[in-house]
Amino acid sequence: MRQITFLLAAVAIVAGVVALRTGAADAQAAPVFVTKIPPGYRDWRVISVAHEEANLNSFAVILGNDVAIKAYREGTLPFPNGTIIAALHYRHVASEENNKIFGQAQSFVAGAPTNIQFMVKDSREYASTGGWGFAHFNDGKPAEEAVLKTCFPCHQRNQDRDLVFTRYAP
Amino acid sequence: MRQITFLLAAVAIVAGVVALRTGAADAQAAPVFVTKIPPGYRDWRVISVAHEEANLNSFAVILGNDVAIKAYREGTLPFPNGTIIAALHYRHVASEENNKIFGQAQSFVAGAPTNIQFMVKDSREYASTGGWGFAHFNDGKPAEEAVLKTCFPCHQRNQDRDLVFTRYAP
Repeated sequence: MRQITFLLAAVAIVAGVVALRTGAADAQAAPVFVTKIPPGYRDWRVISVAHEEANLNSFAVILGNDVAIKAYREGTLPFPNGTIIAALHYRHVASEENNKIFGQAQSFVAGAPTNIQFMVKDSREYASTGGWGFAHFNDGKPAEEAVLKTCFPCHQRNQDRDLVFTRYAP
Repeated sequence: MRQITFLLAAVAIVAGVVALRTGAADAQAAPVFVTKIPPGYRDWRVISVAHEEANLNSFAVILGNDVAIKAYREGTLPFPNGTIIAALHYRHVASEENNKIFGQAQSFVAGAPTNIQFMVKDSREYASTGGWGFAHFNDGKPAEEAVLKTCFPCHQRNQDRDLVFTRYAP
């Protein structure tokens, strides 16, 4: 019984601290999304690459700003505030020109760009979505909220790695 | 007949110029390979990504040093001396952890690293292989010459783009 009381007290304290730190931390808070493209992202360093089949048929290169790269290389979890992760998506297309040279169908390359997504870590500003601000841009324009609302429900299933899917490729 | 004579003369002039510029440019010259890993390459910027099926089953991220990125962005061909292009290869593997979260088999990620390849542009030093020095490292060790000798015969089929396969992904 004492243990349970202690546990409940601890939970209450943690909840209190979270409420204090986030200002308005209730689960009902409206999510805040990122609507500006972080400058200079195309010059950031590589975290890894990815390829989605099924409906997406996409190729991604995942980049990180300096804070992100440092955290990845040092294995820091959760990611510190200031982390920004960018996923640049392209069509995953067969390269006819390469296949002709190779003499067989084997080569897939990045086709037309499709969208760019970002995750921006700020545990205060984005408290209602696990400390991450989500962003999705098509042709430089932010996607509508209905699209952005689909990010967090899926990413939050990955609690063990602070909601981030991509692992660092050495 | 005059056209043929002119053509032969032109070919002779081009051959002469090439011989002059490369110092020892005969087709019999032993190829020179790159045997040291260029420092800092993992921090270079992204050119694009690639995926090879067939025997390779590989995922690549292709990076460029500052000279390479500038040339790509400005569309400079041939690439200037000092250009270095790096291809970091990994196994192309299904991500069970991502698929579990997504609820379907769709996700492929970079698996174990397999090798790193470089192309180093120096039109004098690597004259016998089109101005490019080729390199291939497994676990940090240069591949044997038999492997390196396979690079140029394939790359030289891509004369239109200075022997480089990868196009820049915006």
